[in-house]
Amino acid sequence: MSDMTANGEDVRIETDSLGEVAVPAHVHWGAQTQRSIVNFPIGGEKMPPALVRALGIQKLSAAKANMKLGVLDARLGEAIVAAAREVIDGTLADQFPLVVWQTGSGTQSNMNANEVIASRANEILTGKKGGKSPVHPNDHCNMGQSSNDTFPTAMHIAAAGEAIEHLVPALRKLHGALDAKATEFATIVKIGRTHLQDATPMTLGQEFSGYAKQIEYGIARVEAALPRVLELAQGGTAVGTGINAKVGFDTAFAAEVAAETGHAFVTAPNKFEALAAHDAMVEMSGALNTIAVSLMKIANDIRLLGSGPRSGLGELSLPANEPGSSIMPGKVNPTQCEAMTMVCAQVMGNNVAVSVAGSHGHLELNVFKPVIIYNVLQSMKLIADASHAFTDNCVVGIEANQTRITQLLNESLMLVTALNPHIGYDNAAKIAKKAHAEGTTLKEAALALGLLTEEQFAQWVVPSEMIKPRA
Amino acid sequence: MSDMTANGEDVRIETDSLGEVAVPAHVHWGAQTQRSIVNFPIGGEKMPPALVRALGIQKLSAAKANMKLGVLDARLGEAIVAAAREVIDGTLADQFPLVVWQTGSGTQSNMNANEVIASRANEILTGKKGGKSPVHPNDHCNMGQSSNDTFPTAMHIAAAGEAIEHLVPALRKLHGALDAKATEFATIVKIGRTHLQDATPMTLGQEFSGYAKQIEYGIARVEAALPRVLELAQGGTAVGTGINAKVGFDTAFAAEVAAETGHAFVTAPNKFEALAAHDAMVEMSGALNTIAVSLMKIANDIRLLGSGPRSGLGELSLPANEPGSSIMPGKVNPTQCEAMTMVCAQVMGNNVAVSVAGSHGHLELNVFKPVIIYNVLQSMKLIADASHAFTDNCVVGIEANQTRITQLLNESLMLVTALNPHIGYDNAAKIAKKAHAEGTTLKEAALALGLLTEEQFAQWVVPSEMIKPRA
Amino acid sequence: MSDMTANGEDVRIETDSLGEVAVPAHVHWGAQTQRSIVNFPIGGEKMPPALVRALGIQKLSAAKANMKLGVLDARLGEAIVAAAREVIDGTLADQFPLVVWQTGSGTQSNMNANEVIASRANEILTGKKGGKSPVHPNDHCNMGQSSNDTFPTAMHIAAAGEAIEHLVPALRKLHGALDAKATEFATIVKIGRTHLQDATPMTLGQEFSGYAKQIEYGIARVEAALPRVLELAQGGTAVGTGINAKVGFDTAFAAEVAAETGHAFVTAPNKFEALAAHDAMVEMSGALNTIAVSLMKIANDIRLLGSGPRSGLGELSLPANEPGSSIMPGKVNPTQCEAMTMVCAQVMGNNVAVSVAGSHGHLELNVFKPVIIYNVLQSMKLIADASHAFTDNCVVGIEANQTRITQLLNESLMLVTALNPHIGYDNAAKIAKKAHAEGTTLKEAALALGLLTEEQFAQWVVPSEMIKPRA
Amino acid sequence: MSDMTANGEDVRIETDSLGEVAVPAHVHWGAQTQRSIVNFPIGGEKMPPALVRALGIQKLSAAKANMKLGVLDARLGEAIVAAAREVIDGTLADQFPLVVWQTGSGTQSNMNANEVIASRANEILTGKKGGKSPVHPNDHCNMGQSSNDTFPTAMHIAAAGEAIEHLVPALRKLHGALDAKATEFATIVKIGRTHLQDATPMTLGQEFSGYAKQIEYGIARVEAALPRVLELAQGGTAVGTGINAKVGFDTAFAAEVAAETGHAFVTAPNKFEALAAHDAMVEMSGALNTIAVSLMKIANDIRLLGSGPRSGLGELSLPANEPGSSIMPGKVNPTQCEAMTMVCAQVMGNNVAVSVAGSHGHLELNVFKPVIIYNVLQSMKLIADASHAFTDNCVVGIEANQTRITQLLNESLMLVTALNPHIGYDNAAKIAKKAHAEGTTLKEAALALGLLTEEQFAQWVVPSEMIKPRA
Repeated sequence: MSDMTANGEDVRIETDSLGEVAVPAHVHWGAQTQRSIVNFPIGGEKMPPALVRALGIQKLSAAKANMKLGVLDARLGEAIVAAAREVIDGTLADQFPLVVWQTGSGTQSNMNANEVIASRANEILTGKKGGKSPVHPNDHCNMGQSSNDTFPTAMHIAAAGEAIEHLVPALRKLHGALDAKATEFATIVKIGRTHLQDATPMTLGQEFSGYAKQIEYGIARVEAALPRVLELAQGGTAVGTGINAKVGFDTAFAAEVAAETGHAFVTAPNKFEALAAHDAMVEMSGALNTIAVSLMKIANDIRLLGSGPRSGLGELSLPANEPGSSIMPGKVNPTQCEAMTMVCAQVMGNNVAVSVAGSHGHLELNVFKPVIIYNVLQSMKLIADASHAFTDNCVVGIEANQTRITQLLNESLMLVTALNPHIGYDNAAKIAKKAHAEGTTLKEAALALGLLTEEQFAQWVVPSEMIKPRA
Repeated sequence: MSDMTANGEDVRIETDSLGEVAVPAHVHWGAQTQRSIVNFPIGGEKMPPALVRALGIQKLSAAKANMKLGVLDARLGEAIVAAAREVIDGTLADQFPLVVWQTGSGTQSNMNANEVIASRANEILTGKKGGKSPVHPNDHCNMGQSSNDTFPTAMHIAAAGEAIEHLVPALRKLHGALDAKATEFATIVKIGRTHLQDATPMTLGQEFSGYAKQIEYGIARVEAALPRVLELAQGGTAVGTGINAKVGFDTAFAAEVAAETGHAFVTAPNKFEALAAHDAMVEMSGALNTIAVSLMKIANDIRLLGSGPRSGLGELSLPANEPGSSIMPGKVNPTQCEAMTMVCAQVMGNNVAVSVAGSHGHLELNVFKPVIIYNVLQSMKLIADASHAFTDNCVVGIEANQTRITQLLNESLMLVTALNPHIGYDNAAKIAKKAHAEGTTLKEAALALGLLTEEQFAQWVVPSEMIKPRA
Repeated sequence: MSDMTANGEDVRIETDSLGEVAVPAHVHWGAQTQRSIVNFPIGGEKMPPALVRALGIQKLSAAKANMKLGVLDARLGEAIVAAAREVIDGTLADQFPLVVWQTGSGTQSNMNANEVIASRANEILTGKKGGKSPVHPNDHCNMGQSSNDTFPTAMHIAAAGEAIEHLVPALRKLHGALDAKATEFATIVKIGRTHLQDATPMTLGQEFSGYAKQIEYGIARVEAALPRVLELAQGGTAVGTGINAKVGFDTAFAAEVAAETGHAFVTAPNKFEALAAHDAMVEMSGALNTIAVSLMKIANDIRLLGSGPRSGLGELSLPANEPGSSIMPGKVNPTQCEAMTMVCAQVMGNNVAVSVAGSHGHLELNVFKPVIIYNVLQSMKLIADASHAFTDNCVVGIEANQTRITQLLNESLMLVTALNPHIGYDNAAKIAKKAHAEGTTLKEAALALGLLTEEQFAQWVVPSEMIKPRA
Repeated sequence: MSDMTANGEDVRIETDSLGEVAVPAHVHWGAQTQRSIVNFPIGGEKMPPALVRALGIQKLSAAKANMKLGVLDARLGEAIVAAAREVIDGTLADQFPLVVWQTGSGTQSNMNANEVIASRANEILTGKKGGKSPVHPNDHCNMGQSSNDTFPTAMHIAAAGEAIEHLVPALRKLHGALDAKATEFATIVKIGRTHLQDATPMTLGQEFSGYAKQIEYGIARVEAALPRVLELAQGGTAVGTGINAKVGFDTAFAAEVAAETGHAFVTAPNKFEALAAHDAMVEMSGALNTIAVSLMKIANDIRLLGSGPRSGLGELSLPANEPGSSIMPGKVNPTQCEAMTMVCAQVMGNNVAVSVAGSHGHLELNVFKPVIIYNVLQSMKLIADASHAFTDNCVVGIEANQTRITQLLNESLMLVTALNPHIGYDNAAKIAKKAHAEGTTLKEAALALGLLTEEQFAQWVVPSEMIKPRA
């Protein structure tokens, strides 16, 4: 194998158990990463940054644990820690060129991390990139580890980290904004709608309180799924038995990860389950799917209540962030609702991808790991980002159209429900049907039918009294 | 094994290769069916009637083909044909007690058919139920067959039959009703809506023509998937090679099925694919999923256009088929739209079940056959039945609320689009924004801005001219 | 409307707000149930028995709460309680003829319950079926209730009840059986497999411990979803405000349900969320989906380990419950695995149906309620039933083929992993590749390469030492 | 608004109907693109290159059609054509910064194209970037167009183009490779397997012929879906009526696209359907889903047949493209199968995302357009790329392990099936069961039972005669 690539680029020769491979001279990665680039020219979806960062945390924590256990030389170990820190910080982001569609165990991304960290550690120690000495990608960076426990460990570190650090805060912000609207709109009485048909009154604040509660429960759903995501496979090595790892490595490692991240990571009590299945990811994806279902409903409602300006429901005004139409001047569209609901459709699809992938574990190893974490992290990021944008660019700016709301309320036939306790369901129904058929008000129909007096109507039909149980 | 069941019922002793089994004396089924009842007490979903009927067609056609090929004695063969005819006619419906959740090849339902037909044939010939003589369930009813080619053959017979005989006619009826509404509403000019926001005018007939076109294409989608469903696996026997079948059995059989059903069934050109994969079912399910997506959109639109009566869009009146609310008198709900959209959600889920099941073929045999056909037939029946109900109880009775439609049209700001070619997009936008901000008509805003004259407005803004391209 | 139906059946005339309807004289249901039968001839899937039973619990509890609150006359109330008790007990099961594909709020099934209970209560009090006096279906049976809060309440009662009473016990039984096998097989050392390729050793007990852990976590997942399913919508009435219910009805009602069922039901803190969204059902369905993913993996593994008898892996013998093939004599198939994995495919599809349905709440009411609960209950029942059958007819009878297991272990090349710590990864790789290429044992290859002595090989390569971390 | 951005970058002031916006001086895009960058900081998934290219084709064809119709000045039109050509060629790729998660009509990407092409056209004509003169983004680049018809037109151009130019050729290549293997392996007789259990013999070539047929049908499925993808929405403008477009624009435009691409594009016969629904995309996604199901089965089979090297089925040897394990030296994994099956899981999930998105059209416009085309194009690219990699790096290098195959064949008990026609099913079963129980060969068991002679066994049990129907 020559030392120049086809296009004349300077190269370095690296080796693995299959032989020599030329890699670009300026990069840190080695033979196995380079082979993966060549063998898997599929799609363009790179291994997600949060996963690469998690691999940095994983390698750093493994080196620290191995040093504590006395099996890794401190000079080499500290160089590994320093190099891994650069992976965590993102400094080496361009050294992770591999796509999702590779070996199903994520072996090549684990080796990418091993190669890059070994190269950078060697550069720190010797001034020279690459190679396997003094720091060896397998013997030192991967000491006591296998891709089979390393990659799922990184999956859990990434997923739990993103959930705790980005997703939940974004949902809390959205919850806060919806809750504030519930308070702001607490006294605006409006017509309720069921089956998309006019129903009994409620306040606009009550309506928003339902949305806020959905998000509050969404956060609880993520948190209910977290305990099993906080369990780490590390220490299981190749098949879950822990062969070649030092006794105690698993717990020492988990403690390092917990210290590094500040999250309550623990070692998985059963490493066979942790390698062979990714049920914890499927479970978390199910929580994300549920949140997507909630957000789809909320965003749909908001655009429906904001429909118009003249031929829709028109109860809400949404912020105008951009021109709405390239042909209809002056049109303003519920674009944040649209971005949000597209995100929801994606997350619902991702959940199926994760479920299908999770169902295919064969014996000791599920080999759909990269596609699983790709989808889980995409779903988390999309929900988090869209929640921020939706909050900032839509929810906080929503205004109630009081005039329209009051007009619709007063015209409604469903206020007749207030008469049930007084004249019975069947009589009340007659009034509503007569008013509907003749286009009159309820009162007119009620009086025409002789079912009650004008005074009784005024006393019994009070919308603002119809928004709670009767005393 | 005793000749009385635990609860004192009269029994008959039947045998299979595992030994003796007591079955109720009055039934036709035998040992293997009885074992399945005992071993698979799962759910309550029986093998669908259309599939049982298809097994009747399959056994009848196999007997006829084997007689033609000279390998089946005519006396036995005719008895099999007579008994199979009773399966087709539904006379023996209560002899098929097995659930979907059994052997994944459908072996037990194939044996159920073999046992019932042998028993009934023996009864015809000897006056006595059950047993294996003169007609043997395996040697005669299953002659030259395996469950592995028989069950997928029945799946295709059932699916193609239901598609052609029930699904497509139901869709044609719905298409006809929507198309009739498109014609009926051809001159009603109304406001169009995009992003749920007011847009430029169109006719209500144009709106319904889109729905009709969706259904027209839905029929085309079913028909595009049919060619591969019309291919029959029969003749592949155990693994696709045709071992133990007589040469020519596959084509003779397919000809019998085509003659019996009147549909263009042919023998599958590759029997290995026909046993090991059920891609044709996945493809058909994909067509059903697409139709569900269409129907979800149509039914959603219709309930949205029918929303109100006073606080919604209110452009359509839907038939009132039942009281709408147990608490709100006089309320009428879009219940047919609701039943339809629930059906659509089910069909969309079924498509995933079919896809997951279809993806799991192992080597020579996909062993998710019963769950695949259960879902495909359920989807077909639900779409067909719901299309009938939706047509009869909703579409044909839809009325346009001309007053409301005209009012909304005239108030709309989006008529401003008609001014683009005359005064440019940016000026038109200014008019629309001014009218919106001040709650005025477009004309008032246009004149106030001095951008055109009253005559020009009257000449340029003509809704009925805005529903087609410009000359 | 005549008093005889077309086929000469005796009828009774019942009325609702749309007018008169003839119902069969011998049934308890009334006008609205009858209309639903006529208007929704869709599919054949009846409202699930667990949901009908839950409606009985709901009506009983509502009557008791209303009596306690002093708004329902005791004589009528007690008759309602007695009739509702018969619904709970299943005595009136044949009085619930409606299908899933009806009004999306479940209004017609709520009215079915109201009509049947009123009729039966009237029969108890007067000796005469039907009618609205002295017990009125709306005014008494539905007192302070709306379909909009009643049906979701019944959904939660049914789902929580099935989960606690049937699903979790079935999973516990399966867990126990898998756990027992983990213990039974604790000392059987075998080859592990990753990527379906030979890997390092483990015990068969370790392998089964992973399966047991998956089920243990599955139970935890159901339990994590339960808190939100234990919240009841009742008291929200039409739109969530509680209009027409007595103050305090919601909590009094929830207390009655808790007392009746023994489960920790509480009133939902936000009734708007509880009517308009069914996120709690989507969440529970996500847990069921995760369990299906687990079971798919376990059942797939078991049939793979049991593949053979001669040309497969052959490490396990599964019980032979029935003849396996209608053409291949003597064949025994992993039929319980097949039934189980078909169930898993269905549950995965159902989760999409539930998610799609859950995402479509419009404003104050999600109108996909029947399809949601149909799928959730089907998934629960299928998992529970299949877990019982799989446990009883497969897991408990699984035997290890010790001879085959030992043979495969000893032939494996992956025992070379034990040499990594002694001679390094690259040298170990050379040995494995040489043995593979030449078809020799590892020891032969190792000695030929001169990388270690026979004594060292014997000392270092000890499979039973390779199933745990190194000291 | 200042002329410098916060970070000191040179800026240019652009305007839209909402006012002024500063954009980086060196870019071509304008105000609306810049607003989208600010308002939708969601995810990182850019609008796919194939869609951007399709927007170039769309703008070029629209300009040509408008010139032919005499409504667009030739000097401006030719500048637009030249600029659009650069979009098609990819020269302006970095001018399309927008993400998928934006306005659901794709308005902002349409405006991105309008702004970039106008800017570049103005630069060509005047030497100066940006602005609206002489070429105006709306009045000229978007002449007679709306985002509502433009974006779906680009979706169809992109999807049909990718399908015809990349997906189908990739599938044809894979089909060719599988078909070649079917021929190469035509005489290798092996054991078939059903239910993962040993079954009757077949050739390895027959097995691969089934895979080849699946791919052949996959191509047919894409082609069956194409007719409706080849229909273009252009000419419908805002709501489908064609308002503001010149009569004849739709057909003139479609002719230009057909000429430019060489594909059989036509104008959609019903523009209302074409804007409001994306059923054609759902249908195509269903075809892709079916192909994913096929590929999942094929890749799973190949890794199962290649499992081992010593403890698996071991009938195939797959190419070793990279080291397989970071802990187990010498291990080679079926990595191409793993990449392929991960792709399949993704495509199956994407199909749900597309279906959910497609089901949500509201009235005249489906506003899930970007997420739909993102998923369809990702699915197409992943299947195409993975098919190439799987073919090149796996299929063509697959070798049959003749020794192992013959050994397994000869040991098999299922050869007993050949005896059915001679001694009957029940006797054949006895032989198989005896041999299995006692670990002997079939012949030994048959002779011991006295059911046939040694000569008869030799004459009747000939595996190479068992791979076809009997004469």
